[in-house]
Amino acid sequence: MKEINIAILGFGVVANGVKKILDENYNIINKRLKRITGEDYSIKIKKILIRDIGKYHSNLQGIMTEDIGNILEDKEIDIVCELIGGDTVSVDYIKKAMENNKHIVTANKMALFTKNEELFKIASDNDVCLKYEAAVAGAIPIIKVAEESLISDEIEEVQGIFNGSTNYILSKIEEGLNYHEAMELAYNKGYLEADPSSDIQGYDSMYKLGILGNLIYGEFPKAKDIERIGIDKISKWDIEYANKNSKKIKLIGRIKNKDNAISYSVKPEIVDMENPLYNIDGALNGILLKCKNAGDIFLSGPGAGSRETAVSVIGDIVSIVREGY
Amino acid sequence: MKEINIAILGFGVVANGVKKILDENYNIINKRLKRITGEDYSIKIKKILIRDIGKYHSNLQGIMTEDIGNILEDKEIDIVCELIGGDTVSVDYIKKAMENNKHIVTANKMALFTKNEELFKIASDNDVCLKYEAAVAGAIPIIKVAEESLISDEIEEVQGIFNGSTNYILSKIEEGLNYHEAMELAYNKGYLEADPSSDIQGYDSMYKLGILGNLIYGEFPKAKDIERIGIDKISKWDIEYANKNSKKIKLIGRIKNKDNAISYSVKPEIVDMENPLYNIDGALNGILLKCKNAGDIFLSGPGAGSRETAVSVIGDIVSIVREGY
Repeated sequence: MKEINIAILGFGVVANGVKKILDENYNIINKRLKRITGEDYSIKIKKILIRDIGKYHSNLQGIMTEDIGNILEDKEIDIVCELIGGDTVSVDYIKKAMENNKHIVTANKMALFTKNEELFKIASDNDVCLKYEAAVAGAIPIIKVAEESLISDEIEEVQGIFNGSTNYILSKIEEGLNYHEAMELAYNKGYLEADPSSDIQGYDSMYKLGILGNLIYGEFPKAKDIERIGIDKISKWDIEYANKNSKKIKLIGRIKNKDNAISYSVKPEIVDMENPLYNIDGALNGILLKCKNAGDIFLSGPGAGSRETAVSVIGDIVSIVREGY
Repeated sequence: MKEINIAILGFGVVANGVKKILDENYNIINKRLKRITGEDYSIKIKKILIRDIGKYHSNLQGIMTEDIGNILEDKEIDIVCELIGGDTVSVDYIKKAMENNKHIVTANKMALFTKNEELFKIASDNDVCLKYEAAVAGAIPIIKVAEESLISDEIEEVQGIFNGSTNYILSKIEEGLNYHEAMELAYNKGYLEADPSSDIQGYDSMYKLGILGNLIYGEFPKAKDIERIGIDKISKWDIEYANKNSKKIKLIGRIKNKDNAISYSVKPEIVDMENPLYNIDGALNGILLKCKNAGDIFLSGPGAGSRETAVSVIGDIVSIVREGY
């Protein structure tokens, strides 16, 4: 029996989902891993880093710690899941964990976008994995598909709806709400942050697009390389006009590879019925990969959510285990 | 530099695609593999098994052989791609290759369905991989997604369009053709075999559904366990009636897990606009996975084609290399 010990940094929405699914499906995961690898594994959460241990139920306190040192110095911890988010303390912890020879699974799109080159260099220097399926499009396995399934192909164009909050708002405006009513509904549903500017102005989509561009084309785009226009520039009239012509307006993240010149944009675009993104309404995400050999590969699913995103986090954990590290 | 030597059995449509892409993208594939694994690999086709060597161009004859023994006994060959199809000689070759410690990549849905249990047992006994992404839904990476990305989740239901030929015929009838005109068009486009009964009567979809069911639920369904009704039972009137009500008729393969009782069906179903399969027209395939945690994950893309299917074959080859065999 090989024991794989995990530490989770942060205990917010996604981390809660990871803990619940690992608890509930402990036997299922191990059984499937055995079927694939022929080996017995036991994947367990050994420590969870939180800020205030007093806030949690006593039955969790045994594995909780307020001190990152307890995780970094624990030689039994193989994989660290960074689920704090943002690009401050989280980045520091990711780096230190990799320098302590721990593999990283993260959902942190902001850190991956802003510190991309630096983080991948540290991973490579320390011969550890840096996995991030959950950072782009939640439950949709776009990273694994682009990196592994399409490894022999050339992806000529990416078109995607990478932000469920703004897609929800646009869908509600289509249904007849005005911009402020749609925003309020999105808040009440928990789809928008207290400061919604990252979603509304397209930064969130930009992070995800940049991460995907790096994966596919092996370069690190910066914010200045990505044309970015938010949904606050769309009027209700624009949407009505598009709808009258059997089209919709969507916030589309697009990467184009033309003669090896890679261009990036995040902006509202008019989408017609032939495009599978036309049918991606509400808080869903969808991604169309236009491939030279495989043709048009399309994926859609929940772009956020506790358990939804957690499935991608655990998929990464298991990939690290399978790859034999 | 680690040399990975491949043998291909058969040199039909898909095998041709595999050879072309491996030739054209030799450097791309090796560069990406190096980025992921840190190692230098060289993936090369060492031998191709064909029936009549005289039929081929002289520059290919150096790697061609009419004798399976030349492949089975070649200790340098690591991976055998079985692309002959059917369940006669191909099955025999798959078994013998595994018994000679060679990993298998196959697109052979019929063999995998009819000899499922036997083939997986031989793979397990000989500690080799048996991979089959290309056997289900062509270019769509459904096997990798179901097996790896969703490893921690429970897939409660599968709904899919697994046969592009019949979907093309149904789409053409919707556009106004009668059944025989649509059939003729499908023949002329190369979508139908000389004997179209496997497609029309739902056997082809049944094979794929059974393979997917085995993967997800760990059981081996037999033909008698799968309710099967072909598209020859649909009238033009059925389709017109569905269309008038903003619905479509599609040949749907469905697996349902209800309280651990797994039921299978392949039959024409009325699909409404809310279902993403509604929009899968022409020769495309689409698969909806209804997951307990990840929600509804949907994938679509080409279900057949030379280069399209070849991308899945090569994805499997690279997976075997990555998994460290």
